[in-house]
Amino acid sequence: MNSKRNVYLDMKSIKEATDILFEEFPNQPSTGTEEIAVPDSVGRVLAQPAVASLSSPNFHAAAMDGIAVDAKVSFGACEDSPITLKTGKNAFWLNTGHVMPRGTDSVIMIEHLNIIDDETIEIEAPVFPWQNVRKMGEDIVATELLFPRGHVITPYSVGALLSGGVFSVKVRKKPRVLIIPTGSELKQWEDVKNGKLEPGIVIESNSHVLTGLCREYGAEVCCNTMLKDNLEKIKQAVKNGVASDYDMVLIIGGSSAGSEDYAKPVISSLGEVYVHGVTMMPGKPLLFGKIDETPVFGIPGYPVAAIVAFEQFAGKLLTRMQGLDEKKRDEIEVEPARKIVSKLGQEEFLRVKIGSVDDRLIASQLPRGSGSITTLTEADGIIRIPVHSEGIGAGEKVKAELIRPLSDIKNTIVIIGSHDNCLDLLSDEIGKSSTGSIISISSSHVGSMGGLMAIKKGACHMAGSHLLDPEDGSYNISYLKKYLPEEKLWVVNLVMREQGFILQKGNPKGIKGLEDFKNKELSFINRQAGSGTRILLDYRLKALGITPDEISGYSNEEYTHMSVAVAVLSGRADAGLGIHAAAKALDLDFIPVVTEEYDLIIPDRFFNTDKVQILMETIKTKSFKKRVNALGGYGTEKTGEIIFH
Amino acid sequence: MNSKRNVYLDMKSIKEATDILFEEFPNQPSTGTEEIAVPDSVGRVLAQPAVASLSSPNFHAAAMDGIAVDAKVSFGACEDSPITLKTGKNAFWLNTGHVMPRGTDSVIMIEHLNIIDDETIEIEAPVFPWQNVRKMGEDIVATELLFPRGHVITPYSVGALLSGGVFSVKVRKKPRVLIIPTGSELKQWEDVKNGKLEPGIVIESNSHVLTGLCREYGAEVCCNTMLKDNLEKIKQAVKNGVASDYDMVLIIGGSSAGSEDYAKPVISSLGEVYVHGVTMMPGKPLLFGKIDETPVFGIPGYPVAAIVAFEQFAGKLLTRMQGLDEKKRDEIEVEPARKIVSKLGQEEFLRVKIGSVDDRLIASQLPRGSGSITTLTEADGIIRIPVHSEGIGAGEKVKAELIRPLSDIKNTIVIIGSHDNCLDLLSDEIGKSSTGSIISISSSHVGSMGGLMAIKKGACHMAGSHLLDPEDGSYNISYLKKYLPEEKLWVVNLVMREQGFILQKGNPKGIKGLEDFKNKELSFINRQAGSGTRILLDYRLKALGITPDEISGYSNEEYTHMSVAVAVLSGRADAGLGIHAAAKALDLDFIPVVTEEYDLIIPDRFFNTDKVQILMETIKTKSFKKRVNALGGYGTEKTGEIIFH
Repeated sequence: MNSKRNVYLDMKSIKEATDILFEEFPNQPSTGTEEIAVPDSVGRVLAQPAVASLSSPNFHAAAMDGIAVDAKVSFGACEDSPITLKTGKNAFWLNTGHVMPRGTDSVIMIEHLNIIDDETIEIEAPVFPWQNVRKMGEDIVATELLFPRGHVITPYSVGALLSGGVFSVKVRKKPRVLIIPTGSELKQWEDVKNGKLEPGIVIESNSHVLTGLCREYGAEVCCNTMLKDNLEKIKQAVKNGVASDYDMVLIIGGSSAGSEDYAKPVISSLGEVYVHGVTMMPGKPLLFGKIDETPVFGIPGYPVAAIVAFEQFAGKLLTRMQGLDEKKRDEIEVEPARKIVSKLGQEEFLRVKIGSVDDRLIASQLPRGSGSITTLTEADGIIRIPVHSEGIGAGEKVKAELIRPLSDIKNTIVIIGSHDNCLDLLSDEIGKSSTGSIISISSSHVGSMGGLMAIKKGACHMAGSHLLDPEDGSYNISYLKKYLPEEKLWVVNLVMREQGFILQKGNPKGIKGLEDFKNKELSFINRQAGSGTRILLDYRLKALGITPDEISGYSNEEYTHMSVAVAVLSGRADAGLGIHAAAKALDLDFIPVVTEEYDLIIPDRFFNTDKVQILMETIKTKSFKKRVNALGGYGTEKTGEIIFH
Repeated sequence: MNSKRNVYLDMKSIKEATDILFEEFPNQPSTGTEEIAVPDSVGRVLAQPAVASLSSPNFHAAAMDGIAVDAKVSFGACEDSPITLKTGKNAFWLNTGHVMPRGTDSVIMIEHLNIIDDETIEIEAPVFPWQNVRKMGEDIVATELLFPRGHVITPYSVGALLSGGVFSVKVRKKPRVLIIPTGSELKQWEDVKNGKLEPGIVIESNSHVLTGLCREYGAEVCCNTMLKDNLEKIKQAVKNGVASDYDMVLIIGGSSAGSEDYAKPVISSLGEVYVHGVTMMPGKPLLFGKIDETPVFGIPGYPVAAIVAFEQFAGKLLTRMQGLDEKKRDEIEVEPARKIVSKLGQEEFLRVKIGSVDDRLIASQLPRGSGSITTLTEADGIIRIPVHSEGIGAGEKVKAELIRPLSDIKNTIVIIGSHDNCLDLLSDEIGKSSTGSIISISSSHVGSMGGLMAIKKGACHMAGSHLLDPEDGSYNISYLKKYLPEEKLWVVNLVMREQGFILQKGNPKGIKGLEDFKNKELSFINRQAGSGTRILLDYRLKALGITPDEISGYSNEEYTHMSVAVAVLSGRADAGLGIHAAAKALDLDFIPVVTEEYDLIIPDRFFNTDKVQILMETIKTKSFKKRVNALGGYGTEKTGEIIFH
């Protein structure tokens, strides 16, 4: 640990870096070919055109059940003057798919026959030549092109290939990728014992994420043993990989310019580094170069950075290697829920939740940290903010790349407002039963007041709220009258819950209440302004005559009860105000302060929609209430009750 | 082969049949659960909620390279009055990801440090508490819900699960499907010797297509040995399947009401048939029922019918078994190129090519035969025509379900007009080279005049045409002046080609020319009205003073040269007029009549687009010309030449 550092090469924009990549690795498709049986070829890419060797059908075939005739014998038949045919002579029974007997050219459907006896049939209408016959080659003519090279084989294609007598095809080989996870802080998941992880240790997950992604990009993957930050060992692994027939090597971790970042020295000592540092966020510390004709990437170790770096560069090269078109996500136009500020000089991949409310698509920004994988797993889409933009105004329409299908987004109930652990339970309970039209829940935690504002802006279907009116001890109603006077609303109780002090296990500092924080020796962890819990705290402080600046840590804010509990657990703070369930979840001590009402506030125009009604039904189930009670600190006696309408 | 037939139950609409299906098999998800390692879980469906058992990060971690400090020591630092820190005392070197030392709460980035000596550092600006620190639980808090049940695991999810200390997950078992291909006419592809197929024999392809589809729907598949149309054998196979732990049985073939259709008697003898016959096209002869709680389907044997029946019913049940949402294709609005007529009383799945021309999406109908798998492999989309509709007017906007992604459709050059085998070659040559933005060709064969009309309607990017002007022996130009006087056009030669009589091998009837057909003993196969070849024929007949009604088979029309050649090969006709390449492809005799010019007619507004220019470049390559010449009957001396502008 010292100050020695590599130096970044000139940073490149995504476009510049991409141009360099494709210039250095131009001879695509480049993975060679192999011959495989057609039934095993779904998903593969044709390396040679597929040409039919048989016609389909390979003979003139009956297209109906009935009798085969020479159409001429039927000419003139009508109701008044039927024509009589003799089976075995000028009429031949056959079923769909059978060969047309020599001398016949049409089929009279069984439904149109008067069967007189075993040998005699009458018809009352003529057929024309080739009626009800599948002519030889009607579907496929031998020698015709079935699929050009570059075609990606689907299950449908398999049908055409086999029918056309093509039983094996030459396809492009899958690119082979070697993934080398590096980092002295890493531990393999198999080595984590008893669910305990030492401080400073991180579970290695990137190699598994990238393995999944490589497969989605059509590649085969081999994972190297995880390596410590050791120049020689990493060098040896890369050298071996390049010497074997891998088409690409990905070194994960150590791609930055720190003193223990070895990806760059490894590549430059064995070959050439072309790009180190791209003006994008996340993913800036990406690097790539060439060793003996093999592309080698240094992939950043932060999970979101790793994914963005892979998708923008390594993944694109993989599709090219197979001669495939670039994967593109569907794009839609969304409205940001609020102004988005972005740094000049970098292209940002902003993860957003997208809510479909009143036919508007509203995007809410998720945290930006490139270390937070959940910002991708919770995201519905990505807004790309260009290098030369400082951000996007609220309501300004902007494109988002979709991560989840739009239909799923449209089936999602958007809940914005106060955080409560029961919302997760609700989300799971709704996912439990499948009705063929599955709905899901997306909840964002911006505090109770934030939820009311979201309703005002039409940004959500409902808000979670627990706003205490100190005047009369009531919850929510007076706030709704004040802040949403125009809105016709339903207020439904979700749970009653205990709020109180979350304290370290065993309460080592002997905290009894807020008064103890006045001396500034204890540190507090606060919730953000506008949250019901913050309003409760401020009300209590006022009642006790304590001013905020007398409390150490008053300005340290968290957005959820669980974050408050973690702050206490990790020693960042001695106490915070939060719900009993959060303390219980992390095995912390708790001093109850108040039992409060946590309600869902639902605009009338959404209340009677199918999805909201399914949610209402779910809330009332025994199963949901049972799970809520199991969390601890909750009461379900009013759950599902309409408090106000 | 006789007239004994089963009777269809009452036909049901798709909606009625679906309701019955879901009523009879309601308890979904139903496939049971299994526990698997997270890295192997991509694509699987969570059967239990996934709850984090570790926080991520699991400790307060440096988010930057630099020194860890207690923020308080930095307060007041500025350029004029820097603060001096001592490493190892109140400043601690660390890299991104390292544990924050006890007593520190923030990191000062290395870029902001003045390093005085090994032990001394100066700072000129303060940090605030928790700046540049990834706080414990910032990404994931232990005990929090990572994903609700029903979540489909993606590579991203793997990252969140492993980081949250979840190493194995309970997922829904994949439904297991038994496929039983039946039909006495079938042969396995492995048994086809020397590329020869006896008349009446069909290569069994449906089981392979449905295997691919079942896998796409998340199922595991086992294929039964192919069975002949034998009631007892099929019954035994179904019985065994139901007795094993299959979640679904698909009998392919024999689902209709013919005398050798055994799917219905098999199901009704072992269990109950619920639906036989659905008012849809293709796919009408679908049936399904229940044997010992297992759903058993009778899937029609025609390939397109098999696919539609699977996707509409069996596939939907498979997604429900996994508790998944119904797969839905993206929909777009298209304009039919011409009026589409449909039968009342059945819902039709009309396969269409979709061209993106001048920002309009134009749908051209493909043949409707449910036996033609190529109508699906060539399709870009499906227009569903409701039961109570008689069709769609030309230009009337209508929804189409997309089979190919819209982006591919937009990268496609639409060629409508005369048929020539070189268009297939061109399509393959364009697919050969990948430039990262792949274009493809979609060609429809409606004859030369049809091509000019398509240009007039703005339905294509170019038309293939070989219209002879008998006045002066020129091609195309006079027609363009007459039919497209307003249009600014480019005429580019694709090939010169020999037209002539396609005759049976060895010319057994000693045909010398058109005159021989006058006696009506020989039969002719004609091309459709408006095709250049038809115009050539009519011109020749007129010159010889022969009237159409003197030619037997004059009214039998085909749409391509290859179909004419097949008609001759199969004995349907003794001769037809067509190109030399078609005769050569099927090893038939040929008498040349004329060498003609086959041109591409391109409106000016498309000529200079990237995709058309790529096509122009491809035409001029040696590789393309070489392959054209290898077909036989072609000249490439004018290929790529601009004939007119």
